[in-house]
Amino acid sequence: MLSWNRYGKSRIRLVKVDRSRPEHRVIDLTIDVQLEGAFDQVYRDGDNAQCLPTDTMKNTVYALARQHHIDQAEPFALQLADHFGRTPGVSKVAIAAVEQPWSRLAVNGRPHPHAFVQAGAEQWTCRTTRDAGVTTVRSGVTNLVLLKTTDSAFAGFPRDEYTTLAETRDRMLATSMTATWTYRTDAHDFTARERIRAALVETFAAHDSASVQHTLHAMGEAALGAVGDIADITLALPNRHHLLVDLGPFGMDNPNEIFLATDQPFGLIEATLRR
Amino acid sequence: MLSWNRYGKSRIRLVKVDRSRPEHRVIDLTIDVQLEGAFDQVYRDGDNAQCLPTDTMKNTVYALARQHHIDQAEPFALQLADHFGRTPGVSKVAIAAVEQPWSRLAVNGRPHPHAFVQAGAEQWTCRTTRDAGVTTVRSGVTNLVLLKTTDSAFAGFPRDEYTTLAETRDRMLATSMTATWTYRTDAHDFTARERIRAALVETFAAHDSASVQHTLHAMGEAALGAVGDIADITLALPNRHHLLVDLGPFGMDNPNEIFLATDQPFGLIEATLRR
Amino acid sequence: MLSWNRYGKSRIRLVKVDRSRPEHRVIDLTIDVQLEGAFDQVYRDGDNAQCLPTDTMKNTVYALARQHHIDQAEPFALQLADHFGRTPGVSKVAIAAVEQPWSRLAVNGRPHPHAFVQAGAEQWTCRTTRDAGVTTVRSGVTNLVLLKTTDSAFAGFPRDEYTTLAETRDRMLATSMTATWTYRTDAHDFTARERIRAALVETFAAHDSASVQHTLHAMGEAALGAVGDIADITLALPNRHHLLVDLGPFGMDNPNEIFLATDQPFGLIEATLRR
Amino acid sequence: MLSWNRYGKSRIRLVKVDRSRPEHRVIDLTIDVQLEGAFDQVYRDGDNAQCLPTDTMKNTVYALARQHHIDQAEPFALQLADHFGRTPGVSKVAIAAVEQPWSRLAVNGRPHPHAFVQAGAEQWTCRTTRDAGVTTVRSGVTNLVLLKTTDSAFAGFPRDEYTTLAETRDRMLATSMTATWTYRTDAHDFTARERIRAALVETFAAHDSASVQHTLHAMGEAALGAVGDIADITLALPNRHHLLVDLGPFGMDNPNEIFLATDQPFGLIEATLRR
Repeated sequence: MLSWNRYGKSRIRLVKVDRSRPEHRVIDLTIDVQLEGAFDQVYRDGDNAQCLPTDTMKNTVYALARQHHIDQAEPFALQLADHFGRTPGVSKVAIAAVEQPWSRLAVNGRPHPHAFVQAGAEQWTCRTTRDAGVTTVRSGVTNLVLLKTTDSAFAGFPRDEYTTLAETRDRMLATSMTATWTYRTDAHDFTARERIRAALVETFAAHDSASVQHTLHAMGEAALGAVGDIADITLALPNRHHLLVDLGPFGMDNPNEIFLATDQPFGLIEATLRR
Repeated sequence: MLSWNRYGKSRIRLVKVDRSRPEHRVIDLTIDVQLEGAFDQVYRDGDNAQCLPTDTMKNTVYALARQHHIDQAEPFALQLADHFGRTPGVSKVAIAAVEQPWSRLAVNGRPHPHAFVQAGAEQWTCRTTRDAGVTTVRSGVTNLVLLKTTDSAFAGFPRDEYTTLAETRDRMLATSMTATWTYRTDAHDFTARERIRAALVETFAAHDSASVQHTLHAMGEAALGAVGDIADITLALPNRHHLLVDLGPFGMDNPNEIFLATDQPFGLIEATLRR
Repeated sequence: MLSWNRYGKSRIRLVKVDRSRPEHRVIDLTIDVQLEGAFDQVYRDGDNAQCLPTDTMKNTVYALARQHHIDQAEPFALQLADHFGRTPGVSKVAIAAVEQPWSRLAVNGRPHPHAFVQAGAEQWTCRTTRDAGVTTVRSGVTNLVLLKTTDSAFAGFPRDEYTTLAETRDRMLATSMTATWTYRTDAHDFTARERIRAALVETFAAHDSASVQHTLHAMGEAALGAVGDIADITLALPNRHHLLVDLGPFGMDNPNEIFLATDQPFGLIEATLRR
Repeated sequence: MLSWNRYGKSRIRLVKVDRSRPEHRVIDLTIDVQLEGAFDQVYRDGDNAQCLPTDTMKNTVYALARQHHIDQAEPFALQLADHFGRTPGVSKVAIAAVEQPWSRLAVNGRPHPHAFVQAGAEQWTCRTTRDAGVTTVRSGVTNLVLLKTTDSAFAGFPRDEYTTLAETRDRMLATSMTATWTYRTDAHDFTARERIRAALVETFAAHDSASVQHTLHAMGEAALGAVGDIADITLALPNRHHLLVDLGPFGMDNPNEIFLATDQPFGLIEATLRR
């Protein structure tokens, strides 16, 4: 006897950008939809006549996100609960959401209009080696999660038989940066890391990006320019793709507003700049 | 000065099914493509004329997977290295692959032709409570990762304004099962877990599935049938979607052969069966 | 032929508290020690005469942490490299460190002298259910990582045959808080979460703690007091134990200064407060 | 008003070895203890007179594990529930356990008496590079989790001012091996990986180990001996320490039977063997 059942879609990743003011706003939600009801025939008989696909739930989240202003998780979760509560056969709906805060990047002490950071995930690193009397200090920062909602393009690239990517003049750019730099042998002021970090993130925010490579190069140059005590800097910038959701099948446009954040696959751009 | 650079696509998830014999074979790879070369203009000037998109690399992996027989990671990695080695501007290619082994499920002591298990990831669980003199034992198995390459359909479901999913009579079905069951108060033979596990996985393999719900119900019934000492069983079956890759843009068909394995979002189907 | 070798201890967890000023300072490091050298006899013959135990490396990190002032990872890593560079047979030393930043908690807009937060790891949560026309909103905050260096005791507890814990009037207290609260049915201002969070963290900082339970209760009361729109609050406070390292074998005291941060096992304290 | 409360210790790691027969048996449990009761005074007043420390719970798990035969999680969980059910003030006890299966290693087709594997966690790896027309294939296996309950010693090591480790002639040895090897340029049979894996695990099982280094060297030699197509092999063996629990405070001995499995810190031993 089927005594309880529940089904739905979990971990629907939604990032919505509000561009209605010069100060863009970003809301980043991971949503679970769960429905309960009299679905015995689905389970027992394999009769799907009342089984709304979980794929439809995912589509619905993106379509409703386009139609509603979202400031915070709760009101949007209530709208989703209303919608799914009208599904035939459903007696109970639960909408769970996790909201990932993004802070505005501070540039020259002022909050930036369209560049953001997941403050706090980052860690400082160092690796000191002593080899045949020679000491080397490589320091860095890792897991510095950054996002900008505009001033990033990717176009003019070569196309071969397997290329399907569209050119874009305006895309989201998100990364989880790892930087490592080598101090000159006579360097002693390791608090320089704060100035290096500032140069990196301010350049990320301000740069008019033609590619991740292009921005990486500008960031590395800025770091070398900010601190004379470092001899080189290596940057690794995974491209955490935010895919523009195709809302066309639902008769809606998507003016760079509704994104699906992905973990994998990801682009990975790495380089070393040396004086 | 740009002293070193490398870029590419990481964590391209590929599952290929070889259906040429009654005993299907599955190969599960996670691939990284990395290219090095004289890309100074990309980095310094934002000139993408030589910057093959990482999205194209991903497409290429799937397209070449369709064209080549893959028994093991190495020969396919060599084919990819050959292909990308011909990219203009590239001086060095590295292809990294992680191959996840899948074992054939044993059913009645014989290897099953199209059902597989990631042997070893699973763990046994139990939760014993003692409340006002009453003792309850709930036991289970978690993270039991199963996959079948056929005998799974999903069709006949309702369509609303947000439904885009196509009906299918033959799809991959993969899950990471968690089961928990309650022993009767007088049960003492907890080695029954082996018979419950056997009933669950053999039913997963043998069932002609109309949906995850349908298979879950059959699995639960089988477990209750196999062991009289349990009063109920709860199953949670995440649907680890394996998406059929659209190779049409490259002039190829995809006869249920090349899949993209995804982590999120995922369907989640849960139910309790009671005697 | 042994062509390369390296060995050492990884993930040595060190938290040092500087109590020399009213504003305590905390440095949180995870350290790897790696040594290379002419250790062929160790590998080939099983002769350990030159094999400094990795356990000794761990002890050394704690002992040197007691002897040196540590502001930042790099100078301490250099001291460790100097020390291990003098080990017989060693030709190369690498010391890697990851420094986890802790920010001072802001209480009434002012930085607190001895309470800290891992700003940024936290996420907001909500779970909305709609059941037979009744809508419920439970919201929360999760993974809010807090630490205080004093004003926390644990004494006066019962002792049985298996009790070895010493009483303490002054210990480190660290947690990764999860809070969830239920809004009243007519509540509409979900920005209340900011005031709830403020009440929780300010109470964590200010409370003279007799136990995690004691502080949990005070935090819950403060949250209910701060926001009339919530009916109840549930708090889960894992006790992330920071063990005082016994430096006695090295002839040193440890005046609440050198700690080993542990992940498991952990105490877990949970409760619901209702109006 | 305190409307619900629960507290306890989570993730108590216990590995027990039964040496009563030549075929050792291993049981690996992660245990959570949770108590509910009338603990209002603890929460409200900071009065710990009824607050059994979670540290005592941990000690109790190890002490009871010494006193009882443990074949499977459930009977031991019931014994723990009985014990903690007698704690003053407690109205409800829950004991949760996760049991990690270990399979006997097969050596020459026969189950080994004291070497075990966590079958299934492992993955095959490869990395192919093409650089200036030269192709290199490095392959490997990662996350191969092995444990042996005897035939492992660590003694005769140097002692300095920071050494506290006792010498031992008989210890548990557990690792999560990563191996990578380079194929000769003309190698084409990449199924050799199975023979390499067999040589590695059989040597791990059979070797009379004087140190992790010593066993690593023997494993590498065996792999090079088994497959002529590889030019070198690099092994990384983290030493997943299993600490013998001191049961002396409870008036018990511990004849290499009750262990605390730790994740960090860990020893890390790495080397390359070349022909």
